[in-house]
Amino acid sequence: MLAVMSSAEAEVLAANQAFYDAFARGDMVVLEALWAEKAAVACIHPGWDALVGRDEVLQSFRSILGGGGAPAVKCLRPTATVMGEAAFVVCAEALGDVELVATNLFVQEGGCWRLVHHHSGPVHRRTERRPPPAPSGSMLN
Amino acid sequence: MLAVMSSAEAEVLAANQAFYDAFARGDMVVLEALWAEKAAVACIHPGWDALVGRDEVLQSFRSILGGGGAPAVKCLRPTATVMGEAAFVVCAEALGDVELVATNLFVQEGGCWRLVHHHSGPVHRRTERRPPPAPSGSMLN
Repeated sequence: MLAVMSSAEAEVLAANQAFYDAFARGDMVVLEALWAEKAAVACIHPGWDALVGRDEVLQSFRSILGGGGAPAVKCLRPTATVMGEAAFVVCAEALGDVELVATNLFVQEGGCWRLVHHHSGPVHRRTERRPPPAPSGSMLN
Repeated sequence: MLAVMSSAEAEVLAANQAFYDAFARGDMVVLEALWAEKAAVACIHPGWDALVGRDEVLQSFRSILGGGGAPAVKCLRPTATVMGEAAFVVCAEALGDVELVATNLFVQEGGCWRLVHHHSGPVHRRTERRPPPAPSGSMLN
């Protein structure tokens, strides 16, 4: 049971990594293959409203890749949770010095884990917002 | 088949609404009952880093409710997708004049749909950022 779970989690993490690798090299062929075809898919890019449906979601990736080019995105600290034929990954996304946080949801289709939902958004780290130590005797800065 | 799907979707949407109702009235008893106990849960509040584990997630809700009190949050336009024993909802969250976008993930436990992941984040609406029509002949506001 543990071995099966580990294997499923490893498969999900591999699909998750394949998504980021394809996104980072601007590979629409792989991105199209990674997104589910039977399940109703959705996607929330950072700051965007929710996109619903495979056509709209894939068009958003084409638009991103065609606009500023492929983003230098890296997936950090992914953790996978498998729930039967669905699974989700929570991970950080590094974009240069900026880190986002993401939820990626997968479903089994034809024996493969395919993306059914991607939600990425900003993280406001409290440490980053903390001002530098104030000079002695000053409450400013 | 369609009737079964509709029924499952309706159950998921009811669980999703129960989550927002409990959050808005600061009902930790219901929130604790809504979050899964067997599955590994996670939560990403707006701007926060990911929280992992039931204790950490529930503590975050206690902290939010104990800090500024229960938020006047309303769920808008929820859509549910069921994938076997898991399901996800994409919806907007109204907080006064501010609208956020959320992903809520559910899993079946003991015949009920229970929350396994909540991810909420900001939406930067392009229409909101668009300046009002410029006076004739001026490019400045």
